[in-house]
Amino acid sequence: MDNEILTIPAPDLKKFCCDVFQNAGLSAEDAAITTDVLIAADLRGIDSHGIARLHFYLDGIRTGWIKPGDNASIVQETTVTALVDAGGGMGPPVSHRSMHMAISNAKEHGIGLVLVKNSNHYGIAGYYAMMALAYDCIGISLTNSYPFSVPTYGRQAILGTNPIALAAPAGKHLPFVLDMATSVIPYGKIELHARASQPLELGWAVDPRGLPTRHPEHVVRDVGKGPQMGGLLPLGGAGKLLGGHKGYGLMLMVDILCGVLPGSLFADLMYPSTPDGQPLPAGIGHLFAAIRIEAFRPLEDFKKDMDELQQRLKDSPKAEGEERIVIHGEPEFEKARERSIKGIPIPAKLARQLRQIASDYGMQSPL
Amino acid sequence: MDNEILTIPAPDLKKFCCDVFQNAGLSAEDAAITTDVLIAADLRGIDSHGIARLHFYLDGIRTGWIKPGDNASIVQETTVTALVDAGGGMGPPVSHRSMHMAISNAKEHGIGLVLVKNSNHYGIAGYYAMMALAYDCIGISLTNSYPFSVPTYGRQAILGTNPIALAAPAGKHLPFVLDMATSVIPYGKIELHARASQPLELGWAVDPRGLPTRHPEHVVRDVGKGPQMGGLLPLGGAGKLLGGHKGYGLMLMVDILCGVLPGSLFADLMYPSTPDGQPLPAGIGHLFAAIRIEAFRPLEDFKKDMDELQQRLKDSPKAEGEERIVIHGEPEFEKARERSIKGIPIPAKLARQLRQIASDYGMQSPL
Repeated sequence: MDNEILTIPAPDLKKFCCDVFQNAGLSAEDAAITTDVLIAADLRGIDSHGIARLHFYLDGIRTGWIKPGDNASIVQETTVTALVDAGGGMGPPVSHRSMHMAISNAKEHGIGLVLVKNSNHYGIAGYYAMMALAYDCIGISLTNSYPFSVPTYGRQAILGTNPIALAAPAGKHLPFVLDMATSVIPYGKIELHARASQPLELGWAVDPRGLPTRHPEHVVRDVGKGPQMGGLLPLGGAGKLLGGHKGYGLMLMVDILCGVLPGSLFADLMYPSTPDGQPLPAGIGHLFAAIRIEAFRPLEDFKKDMDELQQRLKDSPKAEGEERIVIHGEPEFEKARERSIKGIPIPAKLARQLRQIASDYGMQSPL
Repeated sequence: MDNEILTIPAPDLKKFCCDVFQNAGLSAEDAAITTDVLIAADLRGIDSHGIARLHFYLDGIRTGWIKPGDNASIVQETTVTALVDAGGGMGPPVSHRSMHMAISNAKEHGIGLVLVKNSNHYGIAGYYAMMALAYDCIGISLTNSYPFSVPTYGRQAILGTNPIALAAPAGKHLPFVLDMATSVIPYGKIELHARASQPLELGWAVDPRGLPTRHPEHVVRDVGKGPQMGGLLPLGGAGKLLGGHKGYGLMLMVDILCGVLPGSLFADLMYPSTPDGQPLPAGIGHLFAAIRIEAFRPLEDFKKDMDELQQRLKDSPKAEGEERIVIHGEPEFEKARERSIKGIPIPAKLARQLRQIASDYGMQSPL
């Protein structure tokens, strides 16, 4: 009974989510944008960043550390760059508008770069990178995020899982869409393993002494409760032997570009709280960039070569026991095709949560 | 005797290297730039990319696949972007000029992006990223490179070790300088292990069947001799368990930005040869970008926060058995300080090579 999974058509889930956000104080436009970002994650199979996060955003609005109004303003700009202060508002709307500014600058001048400070969780990084595809641009999106990760040789979770996303169009093939945390695994995977009492793989995380651990409970976080020991390992794992210092370097690079450069928070300063433990705006930052392909070569030539690159990879011989070489974004496009027909699966626990949200806002549940 | 290591003062090695390049047909300026890039690698302790590569560049000039003259031209540009055709010339001079263009655009407009196509090996990626530091900019440098790496689930070396470099200034602390191959280890490490008959770590490379191997001889390359099976693993290792698909994604991202976007070669098309096996220009591409810090916030504020970020990492508790958390670039700055005083170590084999080069060009050996 508790494992029953309902399936809801994406449009119904969207309608519900958008109505909830408007009831919670978002403008119609901001509600629509935020909904689109969340449901895109569900469609693409990134369930941890989809409708399952609705309660997280609503809690943020309710407790006041996410400001539902449009508090964003442009602080500084050149013809091709801008710094936007999100004013502690919702992440997705300010991110959507900032990525559009970057694209618009790229269309006119070849490249656009917009940084956002004082923001909150913006959903999946890949969403904003993919916005560039419709404009024949390459899109880039980075963000710093809740400090779940330890640096190489450290044992305190002091850096975010700081994702990197880049999207580039192709011709006959699907666009290339890289959307990756710079930790080995996302934090959600720890929670799943903890809930199922499943051991972790060695190389995913360290315990409070900083040693590789198989115990998910060593890493489960009491989010917002000050310095915590143990955490996710950067891509490449513990130490330098398998390149962990490189993953740590990428993590730090994202923190510099999204935290330090725009004058936002960084490292364990992110997600601050008042002395009596009330959460304050996350203070995270984002980077959005777009590159116009035709500033460098004809679009058709670029697409032809993107197809050739993908085809060469797909045709190249497989490792023993493997049948397919995958291009980044492919599994998510396949999942989105499937789920836009079959609907989005809603596990029992999430269904209860959504029913509760509907009841809280005096709405009809979509289930 | 064969293990004796001579030490040469950097200025003497520079003088020799610069004279050799001029004798080989480079202009005084191009010789000076190329020398500076190589000796910077030696000073920083990246011996594989320093004077040890002199013979590689000279071979390229002698056999004609590196053109010693200045064949570079700007193909297309906007106020902030440019595409440069290197015309099969030496990598470092065209890269140096292109990075300067990116910096100059960034100083004026906040960001500059210059892509280079039809180029050859450009040395260490970090050199160009670090050029931005003197101009209070963040510098970025990427290149695609000889296909030593396999994609996730593949067994053919079809992608380069495609490095990513980013440099950002700090205040009291050293600048952050990330300069990393997107493979777990650089190819040079395979050669070292092969020479010493030392086993590889599992997770560094795969054998011709695509399975993780400890045998360096499975991976040693007959460079330029067509499709070869087995190779270096992307950061994260084999399969997806420890995030190998992420390293593969970063590798592919660099190939798209440096190979496909500028209209240069990519994947196993790089480093082509004639039907009778004569090497042609490598056809690789580079990306150079600079971001002006003051387009976003006052320089002093940025530097203060860079110091704080570094200090927080350094002060954070260490894993059991570890004493120090390192910031990227630190070990190389320390090494450069040491070697600029004590000189650059030249192992016996390299000393013989340099003496041979001196004799070939009728010059006095620096040793």
